[in-house]
Amino acid sequence: MIRNTASVKVKNEYEIGIGHDLLADCGRWAHACLSGKTTKIVLISNKKVFGLYGEKVKNRFEQKGFEVFVWLMRDGERFKNLRSLETALTFFSKMGLKRSDGVAALGGGVVGDLAGFAAAVYLRGIAYLQIPTTLLSMIDSSVGGKTAVNSDFGKNWIGAFHNPKGVLIDVETLKTLPKRELVAGFFEAIKHGAVSGRNLFQHTEQFLKTYSLNGFENRFSDEEFHRNLGKFIEKQVIFKTKIVVQDRYEDAERNDPKSRKILNFGHTVGHALEKVTNYDYFKHGEAVAYGMLAAAEIAKNIGICDKNELKSLNDVIGSVGDLPPASNIEINDIIEALEFDKKSTGESHQWVLLKKIGKPILIDSKQIPAKILQRSLKTVLENK
Amino acid sequence: MIRNTASVKVKNEYEIGIGHDLLADCGRWAHACLSGKTTKIVLISNKKVFGLYGEKVKNRFEQKGFEVFVWLMRDGERFKNLRSLETALTFFSKMGLKRSDGVAALGGGVVGDLAGFAAAVYLRGIAYLQIPTTLLSMIDSSVGGKTAVNSDFGKNWIGAFHNPKGVLIDVETLKTLPKRELVAGFFEAIKHGAVSGRNLFQHTEQFLKTYSLNGFENRFSDEEFHRNLGKFIEKQVIFKTKIVVQDRYEDAERNDPKSRKILNFGHTVGHALEKVTNYDYFKHGEAVAYGMLAAAEIAKNIGICDKNELKSLNDVIGSVGDLPPASNIEINDIIEALEFDKKSTGESHQWVLLKKIGKPILIDSKQIPAKILQRSLKTVLENK
Repeated sequence: MIRNTASVKVKNEYEIGIGHDLLADCGRWAHACLSGKTTKIVLISNKKVFGLYGEKVKNRFEQKGFEVFVWLMRDGERFKNLRSLETALTFFSKMGLKRSDGVAALGGGVVGDLAGFAAAVYLRGIAYLQIPTTLLSMIDSSVGGKTAVNSDFGKNWIGAFHNPKGVLIDVETLKTLPKRELVAGFFEAIKHGAVSGRNLFQHTEQFLKTYSLNGFENRFSDEEFHRNLGKFIEKQVIFKTKIVVQDRYEDAERNDPKSRKILNFGHTVGHALEKVTNYDYFKHGEAVAYGMLAAAEIAKNIGICDKNELKSLNDVIGSVGDLPPASNIEINDIIEALEFDKKSTGESHQWVLLKKIGKPILIDSKQIPAKILQRSLKTVLENK
Repeated sequence: MIRNTASVKVKNEYEIGIGHDLLADCGRWAHACLSGKTTKIVLISNKKVFGLYGEKVKNRFEQKGFEVFVWLMRDGERFKNLRSLETALTFFSKMGLKRSDGVAALGGGVVGDLAGFAAAVYLRGIAYLQIPTTLLSMIDSSVGGKTAVNSDFGKNWIGAFHNPKGVLIDVETLKTLPKRELVAGFFEAIKHGAVSGRNLFQHTEQFLKTYSLNGFENRFSDEEFHRNLGKFIEKQVIFKTKIVVQDRYEDAERNDPKSRKILNFGHTVGHALEKVTNYDYFKHGEAVAYGMLAAAEIAKNIGICDKNELKSLNDVIGSVGDLPPASNIEINDIIEALEFDKKSTGESHQWVLLKKIGKPILIDSKQIPAKILQRSLKTVLENK
C-alpha cells in the first residue's frame, strides 16, 4: 500500500500531506494537527461525499478519542452564503464547541470555504482541518487560507484569511469524483501551469497526454499511475504554496508576476460567468477555463501575446474535456458584471494576462478597449 | 488649545492618539493612518452620536479628499448582530468600497465592534479606524482588535481579531456623554485597576474622589481637569495595550496573571446578566460592576480574598454611581446562563477572581461550590 507520497510544508504554518489511502489514518493525523485540548470536532461535508467517506473519517476521529458531530450542507456554490454560515455556527454552539475545539471540512471547495470561514469567526477563530476530495480543492482552494461565502453582491466577498491546521489530500478519493468535476479540476491545474512557468505547464500537458480522463477511475489499480498522480498534485500544491507564503494576504498594492493576484488568471471573466448564471450552470473550473480563453484572446488582440502561445493554451484546455455551451449567454450581461466588479472590489480592475505561457502580467482594464473586450468574449463563448 | 496629550503605540501595529479637540484634525489623522490608495470611507455611527459629531468628522475627511458615505446603525447591544452586519456589508458594496478603502467607527462599543467586524470580513479584510466617543470604548473596546457581533447563543460569539489602523480618542466628546454611560465607563476603569495593580486602582480611586461625576460636563473649561482626564485615560489605555500585545489572541491555554483572560474580571456574571435581560436592561459596564461584586463576594466566601480588599472594591464601585436594581432577576436564570456559557465557550469555565486588588487569579469553576455561587449572587444582587 502506498501511503504518504509527499508532505509539503507551508512555512511556519501547517503541512499538506499527499498520498494514497490517507483517510485510513486520518484520526492520528487530526490528533497531530490539533492542540492537546481539542475534544470535539464538527465534521462538515455534504450528503454525497459524506455517504462515500464520512463514516470512515468519523470512525477514525472517534478512535482517537474525539467526539464528532456531523453537519451536512447542501451542495453547490449558491449554498455557500451567510444563511448556511449562521446555521453552521448555531450548530457549533449547540454541540458545545469550545475555543480549543475544531472543525474538519470533508469535500470540495464549497465545503472547505464555508467550513473555514465558520471556523474563522466562531469565538473569533478556532482550528480547522481540510480534507479535500475534489481535484480542484486539492490543488487550489484547500491551500492558502482563503475562506469565504458568496453574497448578492459577489462571489467570495465576505470572508477571512484563516489558515487550516493541516490539509490531508487522499488521492484515492478522486476515484469517485464525477468526470465533470475532474475536468473542472484539471482546468485549474492548467491555470497554475499557465501562470507558473513552462515546467509546470508542460508537466500538466504531459500528464493529460499520458492519462486520458476517460476511465480515470480504472487506473487506480496501476502503481505507476498512483505515483504520477501523487507527483502531479504535489507539483501543483508546491506552486500554490510558493505563491501564497510570500503574499499571504494578497497585497492590493503588489503588481509583480509573483504576487498572489496572478492566481486570478481566468477568474475575472470566470467569476462574471458564474454570477450571470446564478452559480448553478458552470462548475467553477469550467468558468475559469472560459476565463482563460478570453484572457488569452484579449492578450492576442491587444498584441502582447503570440498566436502560438494562444494555440498551445487552447489545445491543452481542449484536451481536458468539453465545456458547457456558452453561446446563449449575453455578452452585455458579462460586461455589466465585469463593470460592477471593477467599480467595487478594486481587484479586478486589473486583468491577469499572459505575455506567454508562464509569463503573467497585470494589466489595468483601461488598457483593454471596450471593443476588443466585446469581440474577444464573443469569439471565445461562441466558438465552444 | 490643548491637543494631543498622549500617543500610545501598540507595538508594530497602530497608534492611539489621546487629547482634546482632536476631531478638529481628524482628516489629517485618517490620511496618515490609511494607505495612499484609500479614496472612500464608510463612516459608521448611530443617529445620536452622528448628530453631535458626524458632520464635523465627515467634513474633515472630505477636506482631505476622501469620499465619505454614512451608514447609521440602531443603538444598543441587541442590534449588534448578523442582520446589521449583512446590511452594513451590502452598503459597503453598493458604495463601491474596494480592498484599499476603509471604514471609520464613530461611537461607543456597539458601533466599534460591528464596524470592526464588518471591516474584518468585507473582501477578507479592509482597513478601519476607531473614533470612540464613550469612556468605555475609549479605555477598553476600541483597543486590542477584538471585533464581534452577538447571536442567540451568546454575546460576542461571532467575531474576529482585526486591528484598527488607528484609534483617535477626543476626550472632549465625553462632555456630551450621558451620565449613565459615564458611570458605566468608570466601572470598566475600576475593573482595569482591580486586575492591574494598586497603582492604577488608586489612580482611578483618586480621580473619582477629585472629580465627582455630577456636573462632569461643566468641568471641561478647567485646564487642570483636562490634563488629569487625559492622563487618566492614557493610563487606562497603556494598561490595556500592555496586556493585549503579549497575548493578542487571548491564548486559551494561558492561565497566568498577565494573560488577556484577566480582562474578563466581572465579565462571567456580567455577560450572563446581559443575556438574561435581553441586552436591553443593563449598560455593559453596569453588568460588569455587578459581575465584579459577585466575583469579589465569591472570592471572599471561598476564602481567597480578604474582607478589607472586598470593602475597598465595593467602596469605589459605590462611589461611581448607582446600579440599576437587580433584585428581580432570578438567580437560577443567571446560573443557567453561566452553565450554558461554561459548557460552550471553554473560556468561562474559568473565573477571574482577586486574591487582592491588583492580584487576579484564574480559578476553575469546579472550585466554586454551587451553594457559594448561589449565595454570593443573592447577596450581591439583592443588596444593591
